[in-house]
Amino acid sequence: MSAATYTFLGPEGTFTEAALLQVPGAADAQRVPCTNVNTALERVRQGEADAAMVPIENSVEGGVTATLDAIATGQELRIVREALVPITFVLVARPGVGLSDIKRISTHGHAWAQCRLWVDANLPGVDYMPGSSTAAAAMGLLDEDAPYEAAICGPLVAAGQSGLNVLAEDIGDVPDAVTRFILVGRPGALPERTGADKTTVVVPLPEDHPGALMEILDQFASRGVNLSRIESRPTGQYLGHYFFSIDADGHAADSRVADALAGLHRISPATRFLGSYARADMQPAVVAPHTSDAAFASAHAWVDSILKGQ
Amino acid sequence: MSAATYTFLGPEGTFTEAALLQVPGAADAQRVPCTNVNTALERVRQGEADAAMVPIENSVEGGVTATLDAIATGQELRIVREALVPITFVLVARPGVGLSDIKRISTHGHAWAQCRLWVDANLPGVDYMPGSSTAAAAMGLLDEDAPYEAAICGPLVAAGQSGLNVLAEDIGDVPDAVTRFILVGRPGALPERTGADKTTVVVPLPEDHPGALMEILDQFASRGVNLSRIESRPTGQYLGHYFFSIDADGHAADSRVADALAGLHRISPATRFLGSYARADMQPAVVAPHTSDAAFASAHAWVDSILKGQ
Amino acid sequence: MSAATYTFLGPEGTFTEAALLQVPGAADAQRVPCTNVNTALERVRQGEADAAMVPIENSVEGGVTATLDAIATGQELRIVREALVPITFVLVARPGVGLSDIKRISTHGHAWAQCRLWVDANLPGVDYMPGSSTAAAAMGLLDEDAPYEAAICGPLVAAGQSGLNVLAEDIGDVPDAVTRFILVGRPGALPERTGADKTTVVVPLPEDHPGALMEILDQFASRGVNLSRIESRPTGQYLGHYFFSIDADGHAADSRVADALAGLHRISPATRFLGSYARADMQPAVVAPHTSDAAFASAHAWVDSILKGQ
Amino acid sequence: MSAATYTFLGPEGTFTEAALLQVPGAADAQRVPCTNVNTALERVRQGEADAAMVPIENSVEGGVTATLDAIATGQELRIVREALVPITFVLVARPGVGLSDIKRISTHGHAWAQCRLWVDANLPGVDYMPGSSTAAAAMGLLDEDAPYEAAICGPLVAAGQSGLNVLAEDIGDVPDAVTRFILVGRPGALPERTGADKTTVVVPLPEDHPGALMEILDQFASRGVNLSRIESRPTGQYLGHYFFSIDADGHAADSRVADALAGLHRISPATRFLGSYARADMQPAVVAPHTSDAAFASAHAWVDSILKGQ
Repeated sequence: MSAATYTFLGPEGTFTEAALLQVPGAADAQRVPCTNVNTALERVRQGEADAAMVPIENSVEGGVTATLDAIATGQELRIVREALVPITFVLVARPGVGLSDIKRISTHGHAWAQCRLWVDANLPGVDYMPGSSTAAAAMGLLDEDAPYEAAICGPLVAAGQSGLNVLAEDIGDVPDAVTRFILVGRPGALPERTGADKTTVVVPLPEDHPGALMEILDQFASRGVNLSRIESRPTGQYLGHYFFSIDADGHAADSRVADALAGLHRISPATRFLGSYARADMQPAVVAPHTSDAAFASAHAWVDSILKGQ
Repeated sequence: MSAATYTFLGPEGTFTEAALLQVPGAADAQRVPCTNVNTALERVRQGEADAAMVPIENSVEGGVTATLDAIATGQELRIVREALVPITFVLVARPGVGLSDIKRISTHGHAWAQCRLWVDANLPGVDYMPGSSTAAAAMGLLDEDAPYEAAICGPLVAAGQSGLNVLAEDIGDVPDAVTRFILVGRPGALPERTGADKTTVVVPLPEDHPGALMEILDQFASRGVNLSRIESRPTGQYLGHYFFSIDADGHAADSRVADALAGLHRISPATRFLGSYARADMQPAVVAPHTSDAAFASAHAWVDSILKGQ
Repeated sequence: MSAATYTFLGPEGTFTEAALLQVPGAADAQRVPCTNVNTALERVRQGEADAAMVPIENSVEGGVTATLDAIATGQELRIVREALVPITFVLVARPGVGLSDIKRISTHGHAWAQCRLWVDANLPGVDYMPGSSTAAAAMGLLDEDAPYEAAICGPLVAAGQSGLNVLAEDIGDVPDAVTRFILVGRPGALPERTGADKTTVVVPLPEDHPGALMEILDQFASRGVNLSRIESRPTGQYLGHYFFSIDADGHAADSRVADALAGLHRISPATRFLGSYARADMQPAVVAPHTSDAAFASAHAWVDSILKGQ
Repeated sequence: MSAATYTFLGPEGTFTEAALLQVPGAADAQRVPCTNVNTALERVRQGEADAAMVPIENSVEGGVTATLDAIATGQELRIVREALVPITFVLVARPGVGLSDIKRISTHGHAWAQCRLWVDANLPGVDYMPGSSTAAAAMGLLDEDAPYEAAICGPLVAAGQSGLNVLAEDIGDVPDAVTRFILVGRPGALPERTGADKTTVVVPLPEDHPGALMEILDQFASRGVNLSRIESRPTGQYLGHYFFSIDADGHAADSRVADALAGLHRISPATRFLGSYARADMQPAVVAPHTSDAAFASAHAWVDSILKGQ
């Protein structure tokens, strides 16, 4: 059996690759960096890769909007795993360069935004040069003609480059910053239910149906299904047309989630199921007695007996 | 085959018997008047009668509260039909008695209350003597020693008694008054779905569950099921313990109603199903596309395909 | 200054008089027993009494339905106090009569229903004679020709009659039974806010407004106002016309309650305010920060500043 | 009096400038193109401009996300007007260049995406070169060394350049595409209420409050206030922290809107009011009787009379 092939939002050394390395076996698998989220996912759709690791929430390298849109349309995909990566930043430079030598810093714009307090306090007056990723900014320093003296990147990049010195660690402004990534494959058998699961759906807002968003939310609320993420995205076609990308607690094999999914499909038939998978934090769902599998089974048995005239 | 046996809230000649006579075949069946609702229903439970006709809403002979409570507890019963009876009142007296001879009138207290405007206008100063039913008051006039000269009753009573004269017709204060009755049998196959049906349930309010009433109502609202009657009754045991008696549009064989019933059972497992039956007014339910049987079938097929990994 | 005058649902010695005696000063006030709830309230409306004590929930002497209907219509009244009376029953007989001598027992029907287990266990085969009240049944024993040998009544009655012996105490089937009474006066300044208050309203269900009941309940829910009692009553005019009698936690002077009242009035303009008064159990309301008086004040100040263009 | 100064998302000739030209007097005012939304708004905050025209929905030049985020934070701003611009595209080239000469086309990425069908059908195999805006792509053609032969831009750009030929008109894939823009000023007196107004708010989702999104939506729904736009945006600080950008029908001077605003402020005290202004389509709001100004006034008068003890 050949090893798995994974695509990811590259380049190598970014936080996305760190997320991919959390997948069992990924260290020995083929890992293919892609220049954007769409390409990473398209290779999975075409069967050239088994799965793609892409950011879904709060990424320092961008790509979140692209991911939300790309998995919401086109050929169906399935999220099979999530990964959380703590976001810490280091400042790197070439050997011999000290803090006082730095006039310009390069990094991805989102990373720059997250280190502004440290930079303002420690390197006041320094200039910023946009980089296409944190890793690309760091790699660029290996070129002697680089028009900047330092880069901000993740520890993984820094550790992988013997040609770079770490001048400062943990320079991010938000102490416990975390980015969430998802591993996306093709439709197939769902990952096993663990009791600490998450289900992701994309629900187009039916435009001819006033109050539809409250009805959509009520499908979850009325079954005691908690939501951990809800984001709207314009569909891009007409003004006022949206879809909602939603993470709900629980697995499609949980009766309360299956019932909520059926309700969503009735209200918005183009609802797309994007997967049920284990939560990275392994926090079990709290299930009220009246939304347990047993309560659903008992209720359906009761209705069946009524319909049979018993 | 022997004819059916029906009990009803008596005595003979009341509006309840008029309701019973609307049932096909009831004119030739055995009709057993009972002195109270509980007895009428108990005979059905014991198998001594096939069904009982009792008032459920706005009765001029009382009994509504007794009906609501009696069908909510004890051995299960099923409503199989409803009947609406227009409520019109006549004033009767013995031959030879005219309006000017009347000093005292007897009738049931509820009937009295509904003819007060006519009496005040046409027989000012007349006294009222309570009767146990409209029919009993009328019958009492046949006794020469009756301590009153006239009675208020329904046209059916008046028509059945050659010994009484009708002095005035249509003397009720509310022109289009109607009482609703139900025919109650033992559990069995449900009446056929007609598209213009009603489903009756009794839902105990779970006391350890704040907001439970809104959750109960939401089981109907979220499936587009309209309610035509909702009444609370104390359970009689503790302060603040209630059950709700509810009529909903639709038949248990309608997917949206079946789904609502399942939801009720989960929230309040002691929910009692009291029957699905044709509406007396034959007004068809309005069903939104997303709550149609087809929408439910499509939604369940979709969820099944997800769970099968397709 | 002359002492206050109170009417109450009589006769003397019932649980209702026990409730009235909890009112400071009532022991020395004039206490007028009335044969029914309507009369007791009418005397207050006419100014012949200062207030009336009547049952509102779970009474062993009946009258609850009459109270709900009487305060919901007619000239406006205000609840100014509530009283809880523990319901315990004693069996009384004339001196010289023992348990083995008892063939028939009289009491109010509701009281009889609540002592059936004890009677079945201790006096099997005994007959029941309906009484118009527990007190009347007990008093009747003083008549030598009484057609029954014992009566079930409350301890207050028994204590007041030297001519009766208590044969058994605490014979009720429900150990902690309690009846709730209300003291009803004419409109005027509201009782002071205590932090542990209750507000009573009557809300007619607007018939031309589907979903109105959920909207009504939402007026409370959306302001975090808990409901301790909700009962529907038919208005008696047309089928399907109801009003709801509701007890809500909090005082009209609480911003969240005042805001809910305004919402009710918009949806159902005939909503009737029946009073804000201290809870008998003195249990303080739990108020979420976003429904506190401070939150309302801050919100209104913010909206005002917007409208002033600041 | 000096003329007004307006900033807008440039460069000149874009759809944003077309939107600005809809503002009375803007044709003669000073119009300052800015390279990004933040700059356009910052100049207003600093008092260097009176107002800024920026895209808020479905822009072909991007900027929408930047606008949503920029008006949600920082020094307060107010939307005072909205403008709708029909989006039509033309293909332009230098004189002498025909369709068959075109090997590469430049335009903004969003515009490219909206003309793909036409391009694939009429210019198969042509290459795409990203441009920073539609106008910049068109202007670039004036340079003889431009590395592309044609550009896609709006009719306004084409009309303004005598050096360019229009090779094809109306080449967009969506026939009735429209982009929505807003004119943003500093806080001050609100625009007059017209009866066909819109109110924009930014509501941070309180994270410690489960069900908060439904509560937020219910503030509008329970007052009959329709929403025409709702979008979530991550706050960027922590996973799962969002704010919602919402357009609601009606003006803050409408009682139902003012009441909804107060409710939002209670649930999410950091709610930001972004303005009430006339709808571009002049479609009047439909107001149910129970959410009219009169209903609110009557409700408040009623509650006041209760609190005064009347």
